[in-house]
Amino acid sequence: MIASLPDTLAAIVPPDADVARQTQALLDAKTKPRRSLARLEDLACRIAAARGVPVPELPVKALVVMAADHGVAAEGVSAFPQEVTAQMVANFARGGAAINVLARHAGAEVLVVDMGVATPVALPGVLARRIGAGTRNLSREPAMSREQAVTALEAGIGIAADLAARGVTLIGTGEMGIGNTTAASALSAALTGAPVEEITGRGTGLDDAGLARKAEVIRRALALHVRGAVEPLEALARLGGFEIAGLAGVILGAAARRIPVVVDGFISGAAGLAAIRLAPAAAGYLVAAHRSAEPGHRVVLEALGTAPVLDLGMRLGEGTGAALAMTIVEAAIRILREMATFAGAGVSDSGA
Amino acid sequence: MIASLPDTLAAIVPPDADVARQTQALLDAKTKPRRSLARLEDLACRIAAARGVPVPELPVKALVVMAADHGVAAEGVSAFPQEVTAQMVANFARGGAAINVLARHAGAEVLVVDMGVATPVALPGVLARRIGAGTRNLSREPAMSREQAVTALEAGIGIAADLAARGVTLIGTGEMGIGNTTAASALSAALTGAPVEEITGRGTGLDDAGLARKAEVIRRALALHVRGAVEPLEALARLGGFEIAGLAGVILGAAARRIPVVVDGFISGAAGLAAIRLAPAAAGYLVAAHRSAEPGHRVVLEALGTAPVLDLGMRLGEGTGAALAMTIVEAAIRILREMATFAGAGVSDSGA
Repeated sequence: MIASLPDTLAAIVPPDADVARQTQALLDAKTKPRRSLARLEDLACRIAAARGVPVPELPVKALVVMAADHGVAAEGVSAFPQEVTAQMVANFARGGAAINVLARHAGAEVLVVDMGVATPVALPGVLARRIGAGTRNLSREPAMSREQAVTALEAGIGIAADLAARGVTLIGTGEMGIGNTTAASALSAALTGAPVEEITGRGTGLDDAGLARKAEVIRRALALHVRGAVEPLEALARLGGFEIAGLAGVILGAAARRIPVVVDGFISGAAGLAAIRLAPAAAGYLVAAHRSAEPGHRVVLEALGTAPVLDLGMRLGEGTGAALAMTIVEAAIRILREMATFAGAGVSDSGA
Repeated sequence: MIASLPDTLAAIVPPDADVARQTQALLDAKTKPRRSLARLEDLACRIAAARGVPVPELPVKALVVMAADHGVAAEGVSAFPQEVTAQMVANFARGGAAINVLARHAGAEVLVVDMGVATPVALPGVLARRIGAGTRNLSREPAMSREQAVTALEAGIGIAADLAARGVTLIGTGEMGIGNTTAASALSAALTGAPVEEITGRGTGLDDAGLARKAEVIRRALALHVRGAVEPLEALARLGGFEIAGLAGVILGAAARRIPVVVDGFISGAAGLAAIRLAPAAAGYLVAAHRSAEPGHRVVLEALGTAPVLDLGMRLGEGTGAALAMTIVEAAIRILREMATFAGAGVSDSGA
């Protein structure tokens, strides 16, 4: 089993473009004007190319929701107090959160992972992969060491490996962590060079003063940690979070096993960005779930190079956008698997 | 049972805005930042207001797919020959079309209705409500008589009544009819005053010459049938189609029974437009499924006054967008019904 970071990075190959062309040819024979299902057809081709087979199986779906706390929360960058991270993990474990509802709707298993909540959440159904009791304050020191970043990445890789071994073929990402839009903004700014004001938003609901404070915290962090070009692992360690590094690991572990990943919103997107900077060939395994209302997501989506499936103005995180988008991905695969052909159905084909 | 057009129009009252406010208050107590599920919350409120209860039941879903032929097809306005209408109805009946696949995915029953295909389609699972063997050529004479338009509307009203009696609480619309984007464009231009070039598109795949011919046919039809303001029933008769009038009836019949309707794309949208011109209070019962790639849909969506749920570049019709959007509507209702509250889950509420 490929479990280490170096082995995983070495194992990732791009999706198979020939397979995508075969899938499109199969779709072109279905009883509909060619390309009339547009993005649905793109999704079917993308999943097929990732899986390496022209007609992939119906997806077996799992959503990995990683939670951790952030030292930078001490700077007052969130509308909610830090204890909400642990409270929400308990809510996930009991099945009452939005992600539980939408994952049930999507027919996806939810795997809740404690990557380092300030107070350990020892509840049934919460997988402990704790790197620490929250990161350090990234505006004053590195959020974590390089060793911790690698451990978090490898925890994610291990989870992807376990899911693959259990037959999961489509993974969604989600997260919870008070303060994590600050980490995601700082990390994305470091990896893309985007200006702080473009990549900083209100998170769960900051007012104007809070937004200005948050931008200042991010500026300070970038001044402290980023001098010129920054190596992706170093950026992830200095500016990321345990759940962000963990999700980057899930994405890399999935890509190494040719499992496509539906990446939720802004924070998951920052994890995706870190992943593809570590392994550019992983980009083809990503499906951007939705366009988040968090303004920095635009920059992240551009860097990921893939258009979002949904645009519903959502900004909750947890994987809620990924759960909804997984239902659309499944619909795309069903079209490929279940629709009749012109020849089979005796329908005249105009070639249009 | 309300079955006549006049009784139906008289029975339609606007959705209950007070109920929508109660629903939003319930959503605000759920464990998430307020309004962070955005359009999903809007959908829950809209369905609640339509149903008249703050927490509506999980939807019981049906998709009404109406098919008919169009005399105007003789003008060469479609990339496909007319026989494809009947062939596709047979495909619907056998379960092999895109709408069958996506309705199964959405958990929605499909009701296929022959509103007037050129050759009758007598197959099990096809409901016959034939008004004639296709409309007349609207570029040369009225597509149908006022009496035929009323009969088609009342056929749709009757179908909505039957679905309501069987416990259906969410109806989607779909259609099939070679030539029907021409009818939908002409009807929408007549009802909105939009210029022909803005409301005319390639349908199932016309080339440039075909598109120019189609626009000319529509211009001729408008010059023949529309002099100044046109009464909606008259416009529907002169420029519509049997399936378009039938779907307008489904929408009116549903609204009269407080059943929300997920309106598919351009042709369904033209039916929706006719319906709300006949009964403006019906507008609040409509959910626009998606933004079709057919350019005239923009004009129709503006006139319907509701933003589409999805934007996947689709242009197939049949109700394919409605089927996908129904899954998002169901997700919205699940959020309302199944999520924990801050108080119930012991999560600190910032008020943000």
